[in-house]
Amino acid sequence: MSDFKGVFPYLVSPVNADGSVREAVLRELVEHLIAKGVHGLTPLGSTGEFAYLTWPQRRKVVEVVIDAARGRVPVVAGVSHASTAEAARQAQELAALGADGVLAVLETYFPLKDGQVYEYFAAIAQAVKCPVVLYTNPSFQQTELSLPVIERLAEIPNIEYIKDASGNTGKLLTIASKLAGKIKIFSASAHIPLFVMMLGGVGWMAGPACIIPAQSVRLYELARDRRWDEGLAYQKQLWDINRSFQKFGLAPCIKAALEIQGFAVGDPIPPLKALSPQEKEELGRILQAVAE
Amino acid sequence: MSDFKGVFPYLVSPVNADGSVREAVLRELVEHLIAKGVHGLTPLGSTGEFAYLTWPQRRKVVEVVIDAARGRVPVVAGVSHASTAEAARQAQELAALGADGVLAVLETYFPLKDGQVYEYFAAIAQAVKCPVVLYTNPSFQQTELSLPVIERLAEIPNIEYIKDASGNTGKLLTIASKLAGKIKIFSASAHIPLFVMMLGGVGWMAGPACIIPAQSVRLYELARDRRWDEGLAYQKQLWDINRSFQKFGLAPCIKAALEIQGFAVGDPIPPLKALSPQEKEELGRILQAVAE
Amino acid sequence: MSDFKGVFPYLVSPVNADGSVREAVLRELVEHLIAKGVHGLTPLGSTGEFAYLTWPQRRKVVEVVIDAARGRVPVVAGVSHASTAEAARQAQELAALGADGVLAVLETYFPLKDGQVYEYFAAIAQAVKCPVVLYTNPSFQQTELSLPVIERLAEIPNIEYIKDASGNTGKLLTIASKLAGKIKIFSASAHIPLFVMMLGGVGWMAGPACIIPAQSVRLYELARDRRWDEGLAYQKQLWDINRSFQKFGLAPCIKAALEIQGFAVGDPIPPLKALSPQEKEELGRILQAVAE
Amino acid sequence: MSDFKGVFPYLVSPVNADGSVREAVLRELVEHLIAKGVHGLTPLGSTGEFAYLTWPQRRKVVEVVIDAARGRVPVVAGVSHASTAEAARQAQELAALGADGVLAVLETYFPLKDGQVYEYFAAIAQAVKCPVVLYTNPSFQQTELSLPVIERLAEIPNIEYIKDASGNTGKLLTIASKLAGKIKIFSASAHIPLFVMMLGGVGWMAGPACIIPAQSVRLYELARDRRWDEGLAYQKQLWDINRSFQKFGLAPCIKAALEIQGFAVGDPIPPLKALSPQEKEELGRILQAVAE
Repeated sequence: MSDFKGVFPYLVSPVNADGSVREAVLRELVEHLIAKGVHGLTPLGSTGEFAYLTWPQRRKVVEVVIDAARGRVPVVAGVSHASTAEAARQAQELAALGADGVLAVLETYFPLKDGQVYEYFAAIAQAVKCPVVLYTNPSFQQTELSLPVIERLAEIPNIEYIKDASGNTGKLLTIASKLAGKIKIFSASAHIPLFVMMLGGVGWMAGPACIIPAQSVRLYELARDRRWDEGLAYQKQLWDINRSFQKFGLAPCIKAALEIQGFAVGDPIPPLKALSPQEKEELGRILQAVAE
Repeated sequence: MSDFKGVFPYLVSPVNADGSVREAVLRELVEHLIAKGVHGLTPLGSTGEFAYLTWPQRRKVVEVVIDAARGRVPVVAGVSHASTAEAARQAQELAALGADGVLAVLETYFPLKDGQVYEYFAAIAQAVKCPVVLYTNPSFQQTELSLPVIERLAEIPNIEYIKDASGNTGKLLTIASKLAGKIKIFSASAHIPLFVMMLGGVGWMAGPACIIPAQSVRLYELARDRRWDEGLAYQKQLWDINRSFQKFGLAPCIKAALEIQGFAVGDPIPPLKALSPQEKEELGRILQAVAE
Repeated sequence: MSDFKGVFPYLVSPVNADGSVREAVLRELVEHLIAKGVHGLTPLGSTGEFAYLTWPQRRKVVEVVIDAARGRVPVVAGVSHASTAEAARQAQELAALGADGVLAVLETYFPLKDGQVYEYFAAIAQAVKCPVVLYTNPSFQQTELSLPVIERLAEIPNIEYIKDASGNTGKLLTIASKLAGKIKIFSASAHIPLFVMMLGGVGWMAGPACIIPAQSVRLYELARDRRWDEGLAYQKQLWDINRSFQKFGLAPCIKAALEIQGFAVGDPIPPLKALSPQEKEELGRILQAVAE
Repeated sequence: MSDFKGVFPYLVSPVNADGSVREAVLRELVEHLIAKGVHGLTPLGSTGEFAYLTWPQRRKVVEVVIDAARGRVPVVAGVSHASTAEAARQAQELAALGADGVLAVLETYFPLKDGQVYEYFAAIAQAVKCPVVLYTNPSFQQTELSLPVIERLAEIPNIEYIKDASGNTGKLLTIASKLAGKIKIFSASAHIPLFVMMLGGVGWMAGPACIIPAQSVRLYELARDRRWDEGLAYQKQLWDINRSFQKFGLAPCIKAALEIQGFAVGDPIPPLKALSPQEKEELGRILQAVAE
C-alpha cells in the first residue's frame, strides 16, 4: 500500500478567457504550497473546476503541476466522465504523464445502480497501476457511494483511499471500523477534518488548503499527534475560512483569496462568477484575521 | 421566426466499444425516420447519450446526421457543457457543420443563479445565427429554468423554442399565455404530448419517436387538427411505449427497441446497461402490441 | 358505486384566535357555494388547514358543514393522522356525523413502505361504509402513492376515488387506463383540471372553487360536454387565480379572497401568515379581472 | 441558566392496541434508567412516537414519567403541533404537570419562512417559565433551523438548549463559537455524540440510551473528562447499536430491544411495524455483543 497522508490542497485551475492555462502562476502556486509544507497536490478536484474544463485543458493543468512538483510531493490528479471507458482512458493518460495517484470522481447523467457505480470505479482502477482515491460529491452530483459498494471496491488492491464529502461521521466510523487496513479516508474541505482524523483518517484534500497551507499543516500535525483539544482550538480559529468557502462558492472563493495573496489565478470559469468587490473585501478581512 | 414543428425524434448515438461511431446504421435510421414522415431530427438529446460522449464523438454524430438528412428535414443538434464558452463554441461548430438549429442543454456542477442560467443560454444564442431551443432536464440535472429567466431569454431573437421536460402543465399554460409569439413550446417524451399541443405547443422532441415514428406523426396530425378525443384515444394506445421508456431507461430502451426492429445500433454506453434478455422480450411484446 | 362528480370546493376552516370555529360564516359560505351550483363540499382538505386544527376543531367544522348543507350536495370530509387507528376512528366519527364520503389523507413522520401505506388506507375504508377518496400530497408530505398500492387499494369496494395532487399526467393516464371501473379520479387545484377530465377524471376538489364557484362549474360543464377548445380558452381566463393560489399559499390566499368577497373567514392559523395589504390588493385586482 | 447535561434517553411510549398507555412498564423503565445513572428523561421525542399519539395519550405519558421520576432527574417533555397556539398550549399544560423543561419540536404542513419558525418557538418559550430545547428533524420533517433564526431565538432567556439532529458538524462548530453562553447543544442519537461534546455540547438526547443506559453514561463521562481517545474507542464498541437503530427504524428498534431486555413495552404504533423474528434475533445478537 502507498502512503499518501496529510494535507493535499485542491489546486485551482487558472485559465484565461481564451481557454489557455496560465502556466506560470500555476507553477508559482505549486512552489509556494510545497514550501509551506503540504504533503501532496490534487489538481482537478471540485475546486479545480474540472467540470468546466475540456480534456485538453485538464491534461495541461496536470502536466504543469507534475512538472512543477518535480517529485517532491505526490500529485493525485482528478479524472471524471459519464462514460466509464473515457474516465478510464483519462486515468491512463494522466498516469502516463506521471501522476502518482488518481482521484476518481463519479459523474453521471442518468441515475446509477450500485453495480454500475462499482463498474465505473473498478474500470478506472484497472486502467492504472497507481493508487486510486474514490470520490463522489452528493452536494453537486446525484450520486452516492453506498457502504456495500465501498466494501466491494476496497477489495481491489489499488483502490486504497476514499475522499469523503458526505460529512456523515457515522458512515465514516463504519468505514473506519469495517474496512481498516483496506481503505484509508481523506476528509473534505467543508467538514471538520479533525474529526475525520480522530476516526482514523489520514489527512484531507481540500480547497482552503491552497490559501492557508501552513495553518493546514499545523492542524494536521496536532491531529497526527492526537492533541485533540489543541487541534480543536486551532481549527476554531480557521473555521471562518471554511464558512467563506461555503458562502462564496468553492472555486470563486479560493481564486479570489489567491488573487488577494498575490497569485494571479484569474476569475472562475463562466457561468461561475467572480466575487464582487464587497465580497472580496469581506474575504480579505477574514484572511487577515486568520493570518494573525 | 423559423417554423420547426411536428415530431423530432431524439436520435440514439450508435457507438462501438472502441468509441467509434457506427455511421452506417445511423444513416439507415435517418433514412427510415424521414421515410416515416418525421418533421425533423434531434441528435445529442438525453436519449442520444450526449453526456456519455466526447466532443469528437458528438461532432461525428451530428455530421453524419446532417449529411444523411440532406436538407429534407431540419436537424436540431444538442450542445451542452458546464462552461459557457465551451457550449457556445460547440454551437458555433455544429452550426458551421450545417445544423439548422441548436438544442441548448444546461449542464452544471455547482448550483447556478438565474443570472448565470441567463448568461449561459444567451451566449449560445449569440454564437449562432440559427434558432435555439432552450432545454433543461430537472430529472437528471440540478437545474431548472425559472419563469423570469424564460421571459428574459425569449426576448433574444433567435431563442425561438423551449423544450419542456418538467411536465408542469401549469407552467406551460403560463408560458403559452404570457410568451405567445415570442417562444414556441416543444413537448418531451415522458409526458403527454397531446396536452402540450392543446396548450399551444408545436410538436415534440422525444426518444420514443425513433421507434414509433409513423404513429407519432399520426398523433401529431390529430393534435394539429384539434381532434382531441381521437388524439387521446390514439395516445392511450401508444402509452405503454412511454411507460417502457421510463421503466427501462431512455437510451437503453430505445437502443434495444431499435435492435429489435433491425437497426444494429448496439448497446448503451457503459456504465449504462443494456436490457436483459427478459427485458428485451417484454419490450418486444409491447412493441408488437402497439404495432397492431 | 357512488356517483360523486363535478366541483367540490375545499372549504376553508374559519377559526377565531381563541380556537373557536366561526360557525355563522361557515354556514354562509356553504349556502353561497351551493347556490352557485357546486356539486359537493370538502371540509378539511389542505386548504382547510386540517393539519393546524385539533380534533375537536375538525369535528366541529365538519358538523357545521353537514348541517348547513342539509343533504343538498354530498359532503366529503377529510381525515388524517399518523396513527392508522386514530385516522380510522376519525373516519368512523365523521361518518356517524353524516359525512357522505371520507377524504383519507396520508400523514406520517417516519418514512413508510408500500405495505404500510396500504394498511393505512385499508383500515380507514374498513372503518366506514361510505365511499373513500385516497389522497396524498407529495408537495407537503414525504409520502407518495405508488401505482401498485393504488391498484391493490382499488380492489377494496368502498375505495372509489383518488384525488391526485401529483400533477403527473402520465401516471393519471396509467390509472385511468388500468383501473377504469375500479377507481375514479378527482383533480387537484394546482393543476389543470381540464386535462384530468380529458383523461377520464370526474371532477376536481380544490381550494380556488371556493372563490370562483360559478366559473368552476362552467368549466366543469364544458369539460363534461367534451368541448375541449372552449374549455381550454375558459381555463386560460381563470388561470391567474391558480397562480395566485400558488404564489400566496393555499389557505392564506383563499381566506383573503373570501374576505374580499365579504365572507368574514378571518386569518389563516399561525404560524401561517395573512396576506399583506399589498398582496391583498394584488389579489383583489386578479379577482376583479377574472370576474369580468 | 439551568444546568441540564449528560444523557437524556428518549423514552418510548408504550401503548396498547386500544390506545391506553401501559403505565406500569413505563414506570419500570423510568426506575431502571435512573438506577443506571442517566441524567434526565425525555418523553415524546421522535423515538417516543409523539406524532402517532393523540393529545390525551401524550399528556398521560408525560404525567406518568414525571410521577415516576419523583424529581430525581429532570424531565424534558416534547411538544409539537402545526399550530403555534396549540403547541404553546401543550407546553403550558406539560409545565403545569411538572415538566422541568420542554422539547419544542417544529411541525408543519405548508413550508415556513424564517420569521414563522421564529414565531413558533418564541410563542412556546413565552408560554412557559421552564427551559426550552429547540428541535427540528430535517430527516423526517420539511423544516430546518437556519443559523440566523437560532441566533435570534437564543436571545430569548428561557431558550437555553438546542437539540441537533442535522449531523452538520460545521454548523455545530459555528453555533458553539458564536452563541457560547447563550445556547447549549445536545447531540442526537444518530450522530456521534463524542464530537458534539468535543465541540462544546453538554450531552445527548437519544433513543439508544434507553437500551444501553450505563454505557451511555460511561461514554458521557469519558467525554466530560476530555478523554477523547478512550471515548472514541468506547464509542466504536457501541456503534453497532446506532447502526441497528438506523436500519430497523427508531421506535421499532428501541421497543424491540426493550422487549428483549424484559420490558413489555409492546409494538410500535401502526402503520409502524414491529421487527420480524429474524430482525429481533439479529438485534438480540448485537445487544449481546455490546453488553460483553
